[in-house]
Amino acid sequence: MARTRNAEKFDAQRQGLLAAAGACFIRLGFHAASIADICAEAGGISPGRLYHYFPSKQAMVEALVAEERAEVALLFGAVSAIEDPLEAIVSLVERGVELGCQRDYGVLATEIVGESLRSAEVGRIVRYAERDYRERLIALLADARTARARQDEPVWAAKDDDRLARGLTMIVDGASVRALLEPSSLKTLTREAVDLARLLVLSACR
Amino acid sequence: MARTRNAEKFDAQRQGLLAAAGACFIRLGFHAASIADICAEAGGISPGRLYHYFPSKQAMVEALVAEERAEVALLFGAVSAIEDPLEAIVSLVERGVELGCQRDYGVLATEIVGESLRSAEVGRIVRYAERDYRERLIALLADARTARARQDEPVWAAKDDDRLARGLTMIVDGASVRALLEPSSLKTLTREAVDLARLLVLSACR
Repeated sequence: MARTRNAEKFDAQRQGLLAAAGACFIRLGFHAASIADICAEAGGISPGRLYHYFPSKQAMVEALVAEERAEVALLFGAVSAIEDPLEAIVSLVERGVELGCQRDYGVLATEIVGESLRSAEVGRIVRYAERDYRERLIALLADARTARARQDEPVWAAKDDDRLARGLTMIVDGASVRALLEPSSLKTLTREAVDLARLLVLSACR
Repeated sequence: MARTRNAEKFDAQRQGLLAAAGACFIRLGFHAASIADICAEAGGISPGRLYHYFPSKQAMVEALVAEERAEVALLFGAVSAIEDPLEAIVSLVERGVELGCQRDYGVLATEIVGESLRSAEVGRIVRYAERDYRERLIALLADARTARARQDEPVWAAKDDDRLARGLTMIVDGASVRALLEPSSLKTLTREAVDLARLLVLSACR
């Protein structure tokens, strides 16, 4: 019993530190944020205490990527309940753009992409998360294709699943960059991205 | 005469330093790259000499953004010679994606977007460059609309210029992110982005 309570406490404190690290990376950038900054953000804990939870800043980036993957898994779970297969895909794009348009999320994602291109280890983790997302999206597209064919609706060819997945991700990524660089467009951005996603998928249907 | 030669020499040396700064920002990140790193990259000049050309790292980011703006102006100049107005727009997207898909360019752009969200001054410069790009693109769309209408081809409404400009930029940005995260797609990425851009513009035509 005591051990479980301790494990819960450990997880909660780890989570709090991760939120503090994320806030520092957003405010200062990954490289400029020091361990001292993160300790201060977490309410003045000691570096020794922080290293008890994370051996390095990089370990924090890894944990943040893992957290994002869990969030993405939730998104896929949520849209899998939508009956119309095309609407499930469009809804996934919508939620992805809404997430990407949250400034803090977008800034942190930019920071992590930047770091993934410099650190081999972070790059490996980010590529793994990318592949996971792509595979889930391709599986969703394959399901939608089969379901539409069963309902005698026009479908795209199986060989287009990969291209469509890339196009949909391109739209979500592009909308996130737009949200950061053109915040005045926030109100219409999600709708515009969703329309473009629908247009892309339908254009591939015969 | 002597003064002009000196000015040319000054420009050439400044340009060399800027290239060295860009290389360091790409390799190390904006914050991790020190003045000493940039001096070493530039062949071992002294910090005092560097400060003679640029007062700060931020001044180098500003100069890099100015350089990118000049490159973008060249792109617009090049496509303005294309007779078919829709093809001019598609060609602009194509060249933008090709530029964004160059790894160094993409990494530097990611670094500068990140910094624009933290530094008020860099943010101001990047937003200014963004506005400039958007205005040029909207002008190109307006020209294309008028030219197509004159040739009795289906056109989009004037009120759609802004939305289409955002959509096209979304595609270029998204393709650049894809190029960084999914380098195996490089061969088909430009074609896919161009197809999506054409689809977007034509879908708005009545």
